[in-house]
Order: sequence, then structure tokens, then C-alpha cells
Amino acid sequence: MTDAAPLKALLSEDEIPTHWYNIVADLPSPPPPHLHPGTREPLTPEDLAPLFPPGMIEQELSTERWIEIPEEVRDIYRLWRPSPFHRALRLEQALGTTARIYYKYEGASPVGSHKTNSAVPQAYFNKLAGRTRLTTETGAGQWGSALAFASQIYGLTCDIWQVRSSFESKPYRHALMETFGATCYPSPSDITEAGRALRERFPDTTGSLGMAISEAVEAAGKDPDASYSLGSVLNHVALHQTVIGQEVLKQLPMLGESQIDYLFACAGGGSNLAGISFPIIRENLAGRQSTKIVACEPQAAPSLTQGEYRYDFGDTEGTTPLLKMYTLGADFVPDPVHAGGLRYHAMAPLVSFCKHEGLMDAVAIGQREAFEAGVLFARAEGIVPASESNHAIAGAFRQARQATAEGSSPVIVIGVSGSGQLDLPAYTEYLSGQMSDG
Amino acid sequence: MTDAAPLKALLSEDEIPTHWYNIVADLPSPPPPHLHPGTREPLTPEDLAPLFPPGMIEQELSTERWIEIPEEVRDIYRLWRPSPFHRALRLEQALGTTARIYYKYEGASPVGSHKTNSAVPQAYFNKLAGRTRLTTETGAGQWGSALAFASQIYGLTCDIWQVRSSFESKPYRHALMETFGATCYPSPSDITEAGRALRERFPDTTGSLGMAISEAVEAAGKDPDASYSLGSVLNHVALHQTVIGQEVLKQLPMLGESQIDYLFACAGGGSNLAGISFPIIRENLAGRQSTKIVACEPQAAPSLTQGEYRYDFGDTEGTTPLLKMYTLGADFVPDPVHAGGLRYHAMAPLVSFCKHEGLMDAVAIGQREAFEAGVLFARAEGIVPASESNHAIAGAFRQARQATAEGSSPVIVIGVSGSGQLDLPAYTEYLSGQMSDG
Repeated sequence: MTDAAPLKALLSEDEIPTHWYNIVADLPSPPPPHLHPGTREPLTPEDLAPLFPPGMIEQELSTERWIEIPEEVRDIYRLWRPSPFHRALRLEQALGTTARIYYKYEGASPVGSHKTNSAVPQAYFNKLAGRTRLTTETGAGQWGSALAFASQIYGLTCDIWQVRSSFESKPYRHALMETFGATCYPSPSDITEAGRALRERFPDTTGSLGMAISEAVEAAGKDPDASYSLGSVLNHVALHQTVIGQEVLKQLPMLGESQIDYLFACAGGGSNLAGISFPIIRENLAGRQSTKIVACEPQAAPSLTQGEYRYDFGDTEGTTPLLKMYTLGADFVPDPVHAGGLRYHAMAPLVSFCKHEGLMDAVAIGQREAFEAGVLFARAEGIVPASESNHAIAGAFRQARQATAEGSSPVIVIGVSGSGQLDLPAYTEYLSGQMSDG
Repeated sequence: MTDAAPLKALLSEDEIPTHWYNIVADLPSPPPPHLHPGTREPLTPEDLAPLFPPGMIEQELSTERWIEIPEEVRDIYRLWRPSPFHRALRLEQALGTTARIYYKYEGASPVGSHKTNSAVPQAYFNKLAGRTRLTTETGAGQWGSALAFASQIYGLTCDIWQVRSSFESKPYRHALMETFGATCYPSPSDITEAGRALRERFPDTTGSLGMAISEAVEAAGKDPDASYSLGSVLNHVALHQTVIGQEVLKQLPMLGESQIDYLFACAGGGSNLAGISFPIIRENLAGRQSTKIVACEPQAAPSLTQGEYRYDFGDTEGTTPLLKMYTLGADFVPDPVHAGGLRYHAMAPLVSFCKHEGLMDAVAIGQREAFEAGVLFARAEGIVPASESNHAIAGAFRQARQATAEGSSPVIVIGVSGSGQLDLPAYTEYLSGQMSDG
């Protein structure tokens, strides 16, 4: 077991990236623009003004390679960043693999996931624009709790509509939102017109992300001091997450490696995958790395592996701009798998474009395989991964087993996007043999 | 907000302490020995042999100042140690205090608390002695999940009896034990004689720590390959936890400080308090620090502030050795406050002796004051503290407010023993105004 080399690469706070990386500047061709749903013309800054503050609109449409991270945002990142990068030596031994496995862990953030990387700048730029209130929707609650945390940092009111079934079955998550000072409503609620109408039409509904979006958008639209905020899919969210991959590139040589052969990250809306992979795609394009990047999506929502690449809406109600994405259709409702963060009908436009251009691959993973991998990971490394992250771990295990069979020793990096402490009932379900394969 | 100095002091893995610190070697006089409950003579190694493996007995009775940490244990510590030491700059601003506040955070361990610091060596020394199975009791589940993790590291079977009311109300904790491969029984169970007898006498009982101890001790006693394992109170447990305080002393100058004026740590059985304070008491005794150490105990179990200093049993059934402790009486049952880890009728003999000798002070904190402090801490620092840790934070707040009133700027260090992610329902209860003051 003893190994002279350290297991963890720790960076100091002054090594937190100073800029977010915008992959648009380096893509072989410009990605297809977002379209206005009425005119089908490319979206203008003015089109986005009712929804987002100027800082976010600028970032959403930017083609600049590097966008400076405001000092006020880096100052909050310092509470938990840089995040650690680990050699998974005990995991390698448990697998009996010849591969060398590393993981980047985002679970030590205030809410236990990467989501705060984007929630903090979104709250900051809203504050800068004079907004006093943010509204959003959340499913399992990772994004909602991140925005709750970020809102109270900048003194903003935060109202969150959480899918009713999750609100009721995951009380720890809305307790976290409330601890950070947000108000969390089970959706559909009776405090919006959309919510009341939905409750009348579907009295027994357990809610859906589409319904919750409708409520959060309506609430922001009726309040000139409020903005609506989104935790994935859009370009500016992917941008914020690139602190993850930039840190990985600094940490890799600290553990004695220079090349990443394979990178596995889970993908729902795509923000975590974009965050860890885009800085590495930049290295690939410049010939400094030749990393095979593999998006690990759930079998229950296999947009990259089974979807069509076309313009579609981001929500089920058809109210958002049209985005060019791999999509299963805006009305596709994934099975209720535990990885709530991966239950999305489509994939972020920038991730979709990268996949379409051959800059990354994708696999779909069933949730039993994901949790089998998660349990093995927890027992070896002492970290219980988030349900979502288990998909990336399972993808990496497939590769590690292949390497062992071939007798090769590739460097495999896993993006572990979050902690599974609040997903523990799903582990019980898996261990008792009652989990469906989703 | 921006401050040039870093907020976190991070040590590298080769700075994990190489030895545990045994305060017995430095105390002004020898602490009173444990006594055999029958003969009332000082306990011999032979008396302890049926309960513990040789390594633990040696440590329990040792007077050596430094006890080497086996390489196999440090190797597991490397998964999460050294733990971070933070400047709480945002918390200071939220309090508007003139004090400088720091905290040592043990919540990033595999189970979210300091308990793994002792669970890992206990499992290791049992493995070394050829034991294949460990049994223990747990209340809220912090200790049980730590021993579950440590047992699977060394390939030991782990059977845990959890107080039935906690087993039922805290499903996330036993899910964690099961994820780490342990078996967790609600106590009283029907698989021990003690459990069956208790169920017959008290058919509707929700269980107690005393009952769970009886079951775990019986199960170990009937199996020659098993040992019983304890998460607090005894000398060897306090010893293992001294990695915490040793790291603090290395980290303090990294953030530009040389003196700690006040140290606050929560105290139930005493292991977390001992771990962070004993290395600092050593500095006090040598004249290198003049730190006022304050044990923060719950109003519901105020052993140090209201108990008697006398010999008493460690369990409610009167089966353990007699220990010289501050005690409320072995039959004292604390109110069911949320800080389950602090609900103990007495205090570790070494901590009690330090208090009796004037080497530390103590305060009792009500749980509403504790949670008020915890919410403020979470919102400022982005870490939701464990229910137990909130007592230390509240104690520190009293001191910080006094400093502000006096216009002084003392250095205050808080031991944040764990994460409150699995205590979130208690936060909801506090925020909704429904928490009793306990």
C-alpha cells in the first residue's frame, strides 16, 4: 500500500484560475448560434435582456478565449477551491487493474457538488446589475442549493421551485437550501399562475422540471428586480465550470504524470463535463495532449448516444430559445432514476457540438452498473460519490478492465462531480437489490 | 473582502503526524487509574485482554509521550489528512467582531467527522492481533459509520447496534454504514440474549446507548475472533485524535499567527476535544502557548459543568471498568437533543483530569444557541457544521462578542469536528422555530 508519491495534489489559493476558458475561441468552426424561437434568427443580446443580466449575456455570446474571473468571485471560490486531485491507488488495487486512475473531486464545495462554480458568478453578475432576487428551478436539489448559497453571499433573495416528488422524497436537500436562507416551494405551487393552472389540470401531479421552470420564469418575469438563473446547458454555465479542467492540468504533473489518456465525466445538461473537459480539448487541439474524452450519460436519458442533433427547446413548455443540441425531444420524460442531475432530454449546445465534431465520445450507463462502481469507489477511496458521478466512475472501470486485459497502463482521469452523502438512500436501494437498471 | 493572505492552511501528506501524543507523560501528576469494578484495584493489562487487542491495551495504559503511528495507518489517513485549517474571515465580518477566528475542519473525512482518526487504528490493531470481526454500538451513527469504513479497509466484519430511535429517524447514517459493508442492527435487536430480554421487558422501547453497548459487548464476548470497539472516552481513543491538534500547531504560523488565545471544542465523550486540545495543553505546560481551552458541552448533558468528579461506570448497565470522571451518574439519560454525539453522562477520564487540574475550562450551551451559531457559520463559510460542532461555534461566538465589546483582537480557534450534511433535518427544525432548547 505504501507509496512514496503523494496521493493528493493540492494547489494553493493563488493558483485558482484567474480566467474562465471559452472553448468557442478554439473550436475548428463556429458552433451554431442559439435562435429566437419566433423569428428563428440568431439570438441577439437584446433578446436575452429580459432573462439575464448584462454580464451573463456577454459571456453567453462571447467568442473571447479568456474571460477574467472577478476578484469578488475568486474570493468566494477560495472558501473551497482549488479542489483536490487524487491518485486512486487503493481503487486500482481493488480493481486489480494495470491502469493508473486519478480523480478530480468537486464534492467538498458548500453544497457538495460543482454547481457552486457557476452559482457564485451568476449571483455576482446579477448583484452587479442591481437585481435583488433570483428565481430558479431544481430537480434533485444540487443546483437549487448552490444558488441558495451564492444568493445569500451577495445578499440576494432566492426563490426555488423544486419538483414536488423530489421536494417530498429528498427533505435534506431543501433543508440545505433553507439553511442557506432560500425559500423552496414544491412545484407545481399555488403561488404562480402557471402552478395554479397546472394543479387544476393535474391535481395529483408529482411535478416535473418543465413545470418548475415555468413557475420560476413567470416569477422572475413579473418582478423587475428579479432574474431567472440556470444551472447547466447554456454557454456561460459551461464557461464558469472550466476552473475544474484548468486545475486538473496544473495538478497532473504534481502527481508525476504528463499525459491523460482517458477522461470520464458524467453528463446530464453538460456543465460538469464541459468544465473538466473543455480545457483538455484545448490541449488536444493544440497537440499537447491526446486525451480520449468520454461523456458518461444515463441509459434513462441517452441524448448523446441516441438523440438527434437538431434545434430544440431547452424546456418542455417550449418557451426558451432554440438550441442546437443532441436531443431526445423536448417532451421526453426520463425514468425517475436516482441521478436526478442527469435527467435531461438534451445536452448543452457546446458539448453537443464537440461530440458532433468528433472532439469527444459518449457512452450510456445503467444505474445498477453506476452504483456498483460507486460502492467499490467508496470502499476503496473513502468518498461516497454522487449518483451522477457514479456514471463516470463506471465508464472509467470499463476502460480500466480493458487496459488490464490488454496489459496496458493508461492514465485515466475521472471527474467526480459531487458527494453522495445526500444520495445515501439510493445506495441502500442498490445494496438491497431493489434498484431498477433505469 | 479581498485579503492577500490565504484563507486555508494546507499541509502535504508527509506532514501528517508520525506519532500520537500521549498527554499522560506531561501531566503535572499521574491521572487516577481505571479500576477493576470487582476488586477496585488499578486495572491490569490482563483485565482488559478479553475486550481489546494488545496494541490498544498497551496504548490505554501507556505513559510514553509519543507513540508511533504505524505506516499502514498513516497510509489510510492520507486519503483525507492533513485536514484543512481555515481563517474565518467572512464569519468575522458577519459577526462584526474584532477577534481573529480560525477553525480546524474534520468534516472532510470519509464519514464526515473526526471519528475515523481512531476507527482506522483500532481496526488496524485488531487485524494485527488476528481478530476478524468488530462489534460496536452507535447513537446518531458517526462512530458506527467510522468503524464500518475502517473495518472494510482491513477486511474485518463489522456489526453495529444502533439505538433504535436513531436507526429509524436517521436512515442516511445506517445507509452509510451499509455502503461501507457493515451490518447495522436496530437495538434492542432479537439476535442477542440481552436484546431479546430487553424487548421482552420493554416491548415498546426506542432503545438507548446502554442497551446497544450490552448487545455489542455480548456479541464480541461470544465470538473468540471478535473484539468490541469504542469511539470515545478511553485514553487510547483520545490519543489517536491528537493528530488534529498537532496539525493545528503546524498550520497556525502558515496563516501568520503564533499564539492561540482561545480554543473552543465540543465535548460529549471527549475524544474530539482531547484530540485538538491535548497538543496545545502540552504547549501551555511548556510555556510556548498560553491558550485558554474551553470545552463546550450541551446543556442536556453538562457533565463538566454540573457533574461530580468521582469513579463511575462508562455504561448504564455497570459492566465497564470504573473510570474517574466528571459524571452525572451512570443512569443519567440526557434529553434527546440533536447533537447525539454529545449525549453522554460523563466525560473522558483524561479530559476530566485536565479540567480538574485547571488545564481547561468548560461551558454548557443550549441547542438553540448552538444552531443559531451553526446557521451563521454555514452562511458565512459555506460549511454546514455538525450538530455537535455547533456548540463549539456558539462558545467561540460568546468570546468573539466579548472581544468586540472590549475592543481586543484575540486569536480564537474553533474545532469543527464534523459536517452537518446528515444533520440537515435538525437545521430545518431550528429554522422553523420548533427546536426545544435542550
